[in-house]
Amino acid sequence: MKVANRTFIVTGGASGLGKATAANLASHGANVAVFDRDIPAPSSSSKSIKYIKVDVTLEQNVKEALEQTLSWIQDSGKTLGGVVNCSGVSTASKTVNQDGSVLDLDVFEYVVKVNLIGTFNVSRLVASRLTLNKPDKEGERGVIIMVASVAAFEGQTGQVPYSASKGGVVGMTLPMARDLARYGIRVVSIAPGLFETGMSASLPEKTRKKIDGMLEFPNRLGKPEEFGKLVEEIITNPMINGNTIRIDGASRLGKL
Amino acid sequence: MKVANRTFIVTGGASGLGKATAANLASHGANVAVFDRDIPAPSSSSKSIKYIKVDVTLEQNVKEALEQTLSWIQDSGKTLGGVVNCSGVSTASKTVNQDGSVLDLDVFEYVVKVNLIGTFNVSRLVASRLTLNKPDKEGERGVIIMVASVAAFEGQTGQVPYSASKGGVVGMTLPMARDLARYGIRVVSIAPGLFETGMSASLPEKTRKKIDGMLEFPNRLGKPEEFGKLVEEIITNPMINGNTIRIDGASRLGKL
Amino acid sequence: MKVANRTFIVTGGASGLGKATAANLASHGANVAVFDRDIPAPSSSSKSIKYIKVDVTLEQNVKEALEQTLSWIQDSGKTLGGVVNCSGVSTASKTVNQDGSVLDLDVFEYVVKVNLIGTFNVSRLVASRLTLNKPDKEGERGVIIMVASVAAFEGQTGQVPYSASKGGVVGMTLPMARDLARYGIRVVSIAPGLFETGMSASLPEKTRKKIDGMLEFPNRLGKPEEFGKLVEEIITNPMINGNTIRIDGASRLGKL
Amino acid sequence: MKVANRTFIVTGGASGLGKATAANLASHGANVAVFDRDIPAPSSSSKSIKYIKVDVTLEQNVKEALEQTLSWIQDSGKTLGGVVNCSGVSTASKTVNQDGSVLDLDVFEYVVKVNLIGTFNVSRLVASRLTLNKPDKEGERGVIIMVASVAAFEGQTGQVPYSASKGGVVGMTLPMARDLARYGIRVVSIAPGLFETGMSASLPEKTRKKIDGMLEFPNRLGKPEEFGKLVEEIITNPMINGNTIRIDGASRLGKL
Ligand SMILES: NC(=O)c1ccc[n+]([C@@H]2O[C@H](COP(=O)([O-])OP(=O)(O)OC[C@H]3O[C@@H](n4cnc5c(N)ncnc54)[C@H](O)[C@@H]3O)[C@@H](O)[C@H]2O)c1
Ligand SMILES: NC(=O)c1ccc[n+]([C@@H]2O[C@H](COP(=O)([O-])OP(=O)(O)OC[C@H]3O[C@@H](n4cnc5c(N)ncnc54)[C@H](O)[C@@H]3O)[C@@H](O)[C@H]2O)c1
Ligand SMILES: NC(=O)c1ccc[n+]([C@@H]2O[C@H](COP(=O)([O-])OP(=O)(O)OC[C@H]3O[C@@H](n4cnc5c(N)ncnc54)[C@H](O)[C@@H]3O)[C@@H](O)[C@H]2O)c1
Ligand SMILES: NC(=O)c1ccc[n+]([C@@H]2O[C@H](COP(=O)([O-])OP(=O)(O)OC[C@H]3O[C@@H](n4cnc5c(N)ncnc54)[C@H](O)[C@@H]3O)[C@@H](O)[C@H]2O)c1
Repeated sequence: MKVANRTFIVTGGASGLGKATAANLASHGANVAVFDRDIPAPSSSSKSIKYIKVDVTLEQNVKEALEQTLSWIQDSGKTLGGVVNCSGVSTASKTVNQDGSVLDLDVFEYVVKVNLIGTFNVSRLVASRLTLNKPDKEGERGVIIMVASVAAFEGQTGQVPYSASKGGVVGMTLPMARDLARYGIRVVSIAPGLFETGMSASLPEKTRKKIDGMLEFPNRLGKPEEFGKLVEEIITNPMINGNTIRIDGASRLGKL
Repeated sequence: MKVANRTFIVTGGASGLGKATAANLASHGANVAVFDRDIPAPSSSSKSIKYIKVDVTLEQNVKEALEQTLSWIQDSGKTLGGVVNCSGVSTASKTVNQDGSVLDLDVFEYVVKVNLIGTFNVSRLVASRLTLNKPDKEGERGVIIMVASVAAFEGQTGQVPYSASKGGVVGMTLPMARDLARYGIRVVSIAPGLFETGMSASLPEKTRKKIDGMLEFPNRLGKPEEFGKLVEEIITNPMINGNTIRIDGASRLGKL
Repeated sequence: MKVANRTFIVTGGASGLGKATAANLASHGANVAVFDRDIPAPSSSSKSIKYIKVDVTLEQNVKEALEQTLSWIQDSGKTLGGVVNCSGVSTASKTVNQDGSVLDLDVFEYVVKVNLIGTFNVSRLVASRLTLNKPDKEGERGVIIMVASVAAFEGQTGQVPYSASKGGVVGMTLPMARDLARYGIRVVSIAPGLFETGMSASLPEKTRKKIDGMLEFPNRLGKPEEFGKLVEEIITNPMINGNTIRIDGASRLGKL
Repeated sequence: MKVANRTFIVTGGASGLGKATAANLASHGANVAVFDRDIPAPSSSSKSIKYIKVDVTLEQNVKEALEQTLSWIQDSGKTLGGVVNCSGVSTASKTVNQDGSVLDLDVFEYVVKVNLIGTFNVSRLVASRLTLNKPDKEGERGVIIMVASVAAFEGQTGQVPYSASKGGVVGMTLPMARDLARYGIRVVSIAPGLFETGMSASLPEKTRKKIDGMLEFPNRLGKPEEFGKLVEEIITNPMINGNTIRIDGASRLGKL
């Protein structure tokens, strides 16, 4: 699918990976509707990037934001191309703490709610609109990109809720691609290693040091633009479908 | 860890894979506390298998059932050995239906709630009790077994919620093993292919036929006892830890 | 790494995936040295694509072809950027045939020799030259791309030699990336599903029909240019390293 | 398949994992023909374990050893049950060394020859004999077990040849299971983490120390008997087929 003259929804697009994705898509001629629960001043919206305050876990919220996006599309004539689900939260909490206390069920549910259920919530509603698109020459109607994490495969101590949520994203990628294949909608996930964003900035200094010693090449955290570039490749390459792509500089974190 | 003279909790143990697991553990000298939301008449409890009505998604429910189990342990002298999480539900619902309607968020949340959050809820509460065990000669204090599915890896159309929940289980296996390694508690998941249980019995005839044509060897669905036997191997083999084991007769379901 | 003003070696570049890769790199300003054992008339070489007759399994052969390439580089001033290993052969032979005869060891060795050993042979020799490059601003000295196959993950009956060779490629991707990280050389593999090339053209009609029924979206074989496009993304995205990327239109072949 | 009253071939059974496997099978009533290129004094053969000097890479060698085994079977009446391929070699050599020299092609070929080609060579010849077995009640005629390694998934620097050979084993597991399903022969691989054997004893002290710091639970290398116990489970559990099972105490080695 071409990026230009399309409208894409980018959740979590007010920060980090989502922000770089939105910027990259806009720079290639797309309009981008950012769905984020924490958006910059409305004045920051530009001609091609519009910020809409949305909590991805709330059905009604997302429906309304989608309606807003659709009326923007009607004005701009840039058809809905798909969604890149970059909203997400992380935590560091062990199953059982050293004082014997146990991981709060609420914490686990919250992370799963935002990262897994929120991602599904947005994806299904966008998918349902995409099925109404006129297919392009390839028969394609849209692309859904979800963000997992290498923590889905090699979760660290303290990452049980996060790894559960991201493992869920990995697990639903193929069946969602199968559900939507008949409509010419692709579904692909990306599993980033550590990238330089707000999320990684919150890591304790000690952990960060240990991780630095485990990097291969590049010997630095990922840049959000590199993530955004891979998003672009996935959107524009019709044979990429139904799987999760790692982008992690060959790092495999051992015991931290 | 030895099975004999231990008490194991088996969730979902009133039916299918859990029932066979409970029977096998009991036959090897263990006591089994079955946590199931749908239990047989109380009179079906035997000397070594006790049915306790529990909804695994409810914190308070599980805590109370655990207390009951602990007082049984006090009486029997058979230490808590761990938990086998066999409770689970499945659905068949596409992301977008042919009539254009979209998968209910409630359905997705329900499946994730039971299969992923419920499994974590029980596991963390059991883990917290296991840390109090006296370690055996190996330094081992307990074993947590979770049930994923091959649908975590090759989910079929209609399985998005189920694959999401089971992918979540796969994803949290390694980090939970890492969290609990310091206590000598192992965490292992099993990914069954199709087994002969209530769950598979509910498949539509047409799907069942297609699946039959895709089996390799054995050319039949799995028997719950075969699952139960693998559970026993995992409990008794201390080097198995932190990963998910497929048991599926080499079948890989293609497009259904 | 930038593609323009670099020289890339593409093995197997006289046909199929390699040919499309070579054409794409050349169209972006690179010179391409095609190493193939079966090359078109010398007159087909163009200003930017040079065909060199090489059997990738033969050490001396590859060394000489590399020397030729290096003298071309000296003339053109387009530094060596890396290699895309597209040479490969396939077979369809069962471990034990219906007449009781057993798969020839020679057949197995031949496929492993070309696909696995040949790929390693070229990669190591190119790697050794790349270490001598002046690093770019990122510290990068080169990229090695290898071609695996989805048969490394879901090999079909009759594919034991092929799956063994491709599994080998998958297996060596990460350690080779680790070996070469200190030099700023990345190593990435691609696992294609079925693409329209000479290799897939040789499939029996019956098998081809069955496969057609198992495709998801796109509902066709891959086009070599789509493979070539992914190669370009890998070369130009420095965070992609040490793993294998599927490109298969979400298809997972079941029992054939 | 029952272990008792069967004859199993164990390659590499003169040492390490193979030795423990042979001992365990013999202790459960099986006869074991050890195929190893380095065997103890002939007098070490016992009633149930027979050492036969074999190089697994040599077709004729293996054929003769198989004939010897078959005549032993004729005498003992203990039918051929299958093979456990434990022979193997490892190396530590980088793709490019610090002095600029490149990994010898011979080294790569040798490791692939023994670990991958040798394993296939023995497996196909044993498979061909197993097809002649009378099926048991389950329709089962035999079991082929191969030994991969976690290095197939997370190969370390210096492990390119070894990871290639073990990735090949992982890759051929499913298609071999599919080839042999019609005969009721199962094919399963095991991917061990670090175990206490001759192979791990040869690790440099420094590497060994680093690895020790990356273990989870158990906080020690694996014991060969634990590997042997998993072999037994695979032989006796008919639903385990076509995949590779990790046994590694939850360790995932990071950068060494
Ligand atoms: N940064 C990394 O190293 C890394 C690694 C692997 C995966 N990821 C994943 O990438 C995605 C993006 O992460 P990031 O690093 O850019 O983090 P970030 O914190 O910079 O950005 C996340 C954005 O999501 C938004 N958000 C959170 N909850 C939301 C909700 N309920 N509704 C709407 N918006 C919500 C936040 O407001 C924020 O703008 C996340 O899914 C994260 O898990 C990040
Ligand atoms: N049968 C298969 O083919 C198959 C394949 C792969 C995975 N699995 C998984 O194996 C597990 C066992 O499945 P099964 O086939 O035995 O199914 P089953 O339906 O026979 O048994 C599941 C049991 O879980 C109980 N349960 C459901 N929700 C519960 C809750 N909230 N609290 C407490 N108990 C609850 C049910 O009452 C039932 O007794 C499930 O997790 C399932 O997803 C099954
Ligand atoms: N086409 C597919 O569907 C598909 C799918 C998965 C993987 N692959 C892999 O992609 C790669 C390219 O395949 P393709 O489909 O383009 O096949 P192809 O047959 O069109 O091209 C392969 C090329 O490799 C060359 N070659 C073979 N042996 C060689 C040797 N020893 N030395 C030098 N050159 C040699 C051939 O001459 C040919 O030009 C192969 O590794 C193949 O296994 C292809
Ligand atoms: N020990 C570990 O930590 C470990 C980890 C992962 C995988 N493995 C694998 O497990 C298998 C067994 O290894 P081990 O640790 O017991 O090693 P080991 O060195 O103790 O035993 C290997 C045996 O294989 C035999 N052998 C080697 N080449 C042979 C040939 N060509 N023909 C016949 N016999 C041959 C040797 O003589 C030896 O007796 C190997 O495949 C190894 O790669 C071992």
